[in-house]
Amino acid sequence: MFSTAKIYAVGVGPGDPELLTRKAARIIAAADVVCAPTGAVDAASYALSIVADLVDPDRQEILPQVFPMMKKGPELVAAWEEAALQVIERVERGKNVVFITIGDPLLYSTFLYLHRIIVGRRPDIPIEFVPGISSINAAAAAAGLPLGIAGDRIAILPATYEDYELRKTLKEFDTVVLMKVSRVFPRIYAVLQELGLVDRGVFVRRVGSVQQEVVHDLATLLDRELDYLSMLIVRK
Amino acid sequence: MFSTAKIYAVGVGPGDPELLTRKAARIIAAADVVCAPTGAVDAASYALSIVADLVDPDRQEILPQVFPMMKKGPELVAAWEEAALQVIERVERGKNVVFITIGDPLLYSTFLYLHRIIVGRRPDIPIEFVPGISSINAAAAAAGLPLGIAGDRIAILPATYEDYELRKTLKEFDTVVLMKVSRVFPRIYAVLQELGLVDRGVFVRRVGSVQQEVVHDLATLLDRELDYLSMLIVRK
Repeated sequence: MFSTAKIYAVGVGPGDPELLTRKAARIIAAADVVCAPTGAVDAASYALSIVADLVDPDRQEILPQVFPMMKKGPELVAAWEEAALQVIERVERGKNVVFITIGDPLLYSTFLYLHRIIVGRRPDIPIEFVPGISSINAAAAAAGLPLGIAGDRIAILPATYEDYELRKTLKEFDTVVLMKVSRVFPRIYAVLQELGLVDRGVFVRRVGSVQQEVVHDLATLLDRELDYLSMLIVRK
Repeated sequence: MFSTAKIYAVGVGPGDPELLTRKAARIIAAADVVCAPTGAVDAASYALSIVADLVDPDRQEILPQVFPMMKKGPELVAAWEEAALQVIERVERGKNVVFITIGDPLLYSTFLYLHRIIVGRRPDIPIEFVPGISSINAAAAAAGLPLGIAGDRIAILPATYEDYELRKTLKEFDTVVLMKVSRVFPRIYAVLQELGLVDRGVFVRRVGSVQQEVVHDLATLLDRELDYLSMLIVRK
């Protein structure tokens, strides 16, 4: 089947519509179809809210795609499969499809699951990735905290690790970025205390949104309910 | 001394003017002074070339600042000192100063050296960081290579490390980003070969520029003169 249509995986940055790149803005505005991930059928898409000024439902198909908020399971795999087929079907009809994703599309994005499926089924469909400002870069900017200078080594760890792994990484790297720290924060705090690094950590919540918060005094976080979209940057 | 002026450290992305954010574009266009780093007195500023469509020498002071291409030394420290004083002096005169930097201002940027000096001398001057697309995110996008999915761990290493450190990092992390690999490439290649990871590495040169090149067959690079602005992403 011949088609010149393609798929664009476009990062829309962490939340502030001004942190979109000019390329992302152009490609989203020109798309035939804009796929927007949501966490539930009745939930709004955060990515879509960021680009609300660029899309036009009269001219474009706005296609919310539901990805249940869970780490694994057949329901999630089925959601990826269905979303990938929806994208492929539109490309086959000659439509340019943009999948928008918070932050950067190559860094912990939902699109990467669809990507695997699409490449497996239709390796002939061209896919272009448009980078976006990741929450890591945005958090560092909000905190005014360097991620790396000169020969510094940087590690990025998602939420799952054992204490001994965290300890080791904190010893060996100059900067350690800990993603999604909300559930494991007390454990992380204890390790930082043990290593004398409590005052080297900066907590950033919902960067780029109106709820953005930068916290330097980590002790104040111990009694709080922490946001799911939170990270901790530790810089020695 | 009272002043409402401030300093903006603005990332302009890896090279393509379209990869500038809308915020960066707005702030650069509105600045009184645009400081642009160059490597030599007679050299053009790469960062300035990226934003050429936004600046206006009739309305703005375009101030090239020379940072000699060396890793350390009194000449370099003197250049940082002079540049920091030039920025402070203009803020004291009520001017909003934008320092533009390739990629992201918190990730291995020249501005971070000035930042230390400015904060040390004039902690009262407000500094706002505007994140930019880093060469790492742009390289991953150009190569279509995920930096991380789900629980993946990512390490970023600059050019200086011993073979045993590289070996260890490659074993412990899912993705390893090696910056500025040109001089040490044969050594890196040997370690990748030893670990059976040669086919897991992607080389990206001058991402976001017209000379951009993505190389999957690393063996072809062994006999080549490699570009200073090159990186290698190894994903297991």
